[in-house]
Amino acid sequence: MALASIFFGEEAFNQLREVLRSGDYTKVGLLVDSNTFECCYPNFMEALAMEVPQLELIEIEPGEESKSLEILASLWESLGELQFDRNSLIINLGGGVVSDLGGFMAATYMRGIDFINFPTSLLAMADAAVGSKTGINFGAYKNRIGSFSDPLMVGIIPDFLKSLTEQELYSGWAEMLKHGLISDLQHWNALYQFDLEEKIPSKRLLQESIAIKAKIVEADKKEGGLRKVLNFGHSVGHALESYYASIQSPISHGHAVALGMQVELFISAQKFPWDQVVYDSVQEYLRQYYNWPELPVDQEAFLRLLAGDKKNQASKIRLVLLRGIGSPEIDQEIAPALVWDALTKVVDG
Amino acid sequence: MALASIFFGEEAFNQLREVLRSGDYTKVGLLVDSNTFECCYPNFMEALAMEVPQLELIEIEPGEESKSLEILASLWESLGELQFDRNSLIINLGGGVVSDLGGFMAATYMRGIDFINFPTSLLAMADAAVGSKTGINFGAYKNRIGSFSDPLMVGIIPDFLKSLTEQELYSGWAEMLKHGLISDLQHWNALYQFDLEEKIPSKRLLQESIAIKAKIVEADKKEGGLRKVLNFGHSVGHALESYYASIQSPISHGHAVALGMQVELFISAQKFPWDQVVYDSVQEYLRQYYNWPELPVDQEAFLRLLAGDKKNQASKIRLVLLRGIGSPEIDQEIAPALVWDALTKVVDG
Repeated sequence: MALASIFFGEEAFNQLREVLRSGDYTKVGLLVDSNTFECCYPNFMEALAMEVPQLELIEIEPGEESKSLEILASLWESLGELQFDRNSLIINLGGGVVSDLGGFMAATYMRGIDFINFPTSLLAMADAAVGSKTGINFGAYKNRIGSFSDPLMVGIIPDFLKSLTEQELYSGWAEMLKHGLISDLQHWNALYQFDLEEKIPSKRLLQESIAIKAKIVEADKKEGGLRKVLNFGHSVGHALESYYASIQSPISHGHAVALGMQVELFISAQKFPWDQVVYDSVQEYLRQYYNWPELPVDQEAFLRLLAGDKKNQASKIRLVLLRGIGSPEIDQEIAPALVWDALTKVVDG
Repeated sequence: MALASIFFGEEAFNQLREVLRSGDYTKVGLLVDSNTFECCYPNFMEALAMEVPQLELIEIEPGEESKSLEILASLWESLGELQFDRNSLIINLGGGVVSDLGGFMAATYMRGIDFINFPTSLLAMADAAVGSKTGINFGAYKNRIGSFSDPLMVGIIPDFLKSLTEQELYSGWAEMLKHGLISDLQHWNALYQFDLEEKIPSKRLLQESIAIKAKIVEADKKEGGLRKVLNFGHSVGHALESYYASIQSPISHGHAVALGMQVELFISAQKFPWDQVVYDSVQEYLRQYYNWPELPVDQEAFLRLLAGDKKNQASKIRLVLLRGIGSPEIDQEIAPALVWDALTKVVDG
């Protein structure tokens, strides 16, 4: 994902107008879910401020359940019925579900047609929409089927954030915090000092955070090495996300990642010589905004989920750890017992 | 598809042994259909002459029906059950159905794992296995869903051709003839002089023909321009293939392409100043080996199928025509009536 193809605010609409006026596209599909159709589609069309005669609106249900093979197949069918051809375009207007599903749909229809992401959630802006990853869930596994495919462009419209709940904002914020922790003390400090309870993230903060992600992805799209740093907090986070979902007390992705970061940070400080003051300030910040659910975590279930994470080769547990803020170390082999030990200590504070 | 990753005969097995000995792969899936399991798998394993402890045999039914979403989903499921991870490898041992389906399965499982093609039919050697195209059929459309994905390597084993029927040999031969016609008089002459009734194509002929295809695909993988020359004979050919299938008298893909080349050659000679002697020799060669079925072609049905070919933008009919052997011209807009007129004249001789 080239940073050069990510545009912010009015500039994003300028770019999109240019794409649509180029006449390169026979059809334009706008993929929304019923939430983004209500909250964002009217603003989107108003800000776009142009007639798009070849526009076709395609709507899905919101939520992770839409990232299924059944929905994907029905979308492929719709594209055929609407006579989309190789020179058609898809615009994904929504959160991560819309861009993951819509991106994979576009990447595989007629061996790939162009697509554009306009993320509407903070999580999608900071993560899904700029990551070149597309896909659906399959069987019991998240993102089991998918591709690495770059959108033609990404449009980041901070105004969309106004419609989000506090929980949704905090979910995306966790990924931004991660970007600071894995790569940039300055970005971490800016986030640390920003008051998310008072206002939505500024354009500058978004730009900084997205630039970190885009540069890492551009350097290593297929996760051969460097890109793995983006998994900080995610190995433990994914296991927690699956665990709480399995006991019918789901927490948001970002919340789970923030809890995962607390645990992986604890292990980092055991392995590397962290400055105690810095460590405490990070850990306290995370604990303050991302608290542990009161439901206890079941050791056996957790470790099974941790081992099943597809980022671990042959079921070994490999984590991204931090030597300090901005200094990640990938592929750190850790005994599952140690992860569990860290988790219990973090939960106990 | 880089020419450098296509290997012939014993060299292909040397390369494969190196890949398997590298220890890079946790699992190796060998995808076969029940025909290639019988005809090629024993020879393949004997020639490979090494133990592959992580090998898993995956078998599908032969035939175009296997290129379906249902079969694809069952294969994705199998990979999961067999615990294939991101560092697993797929070897496709079969014709175009196996490499198209197996390639797409690999390209989308966990966002893409490595795959290798060992084509067993002449058609797959000369075309499908070295084209970077993968995919399945969907709804009424061939290859509607798929990707452009390069195999790690392709192994061409001329010995596999010994098990093919005459009809299968001629089907692949048509694609080789096409390579001569669109790009190389010398290759055309070599094919023209070779007696396919007496012996299977030589390694040298295969190398020449595959090199032509691989170079074109390498220069323009996603068919932005140059690659379109490979569609010579295919716009009319695909319509004929679908037509004869629809009246329950299917002909092979190569046979249909050879008939398509006859029609598109006729139109070429109307539009460009062909040397009459050269034209006659090409047309006669094609007519001699690829005759027209006695069943007449229905004009309306044919033109509908021709317009529906997905290579035509917005239902206009665009053909690849030849100024002469080795001089293709892409995107030649032709009135459907003229195509029909050419077809009737070619059928009448």
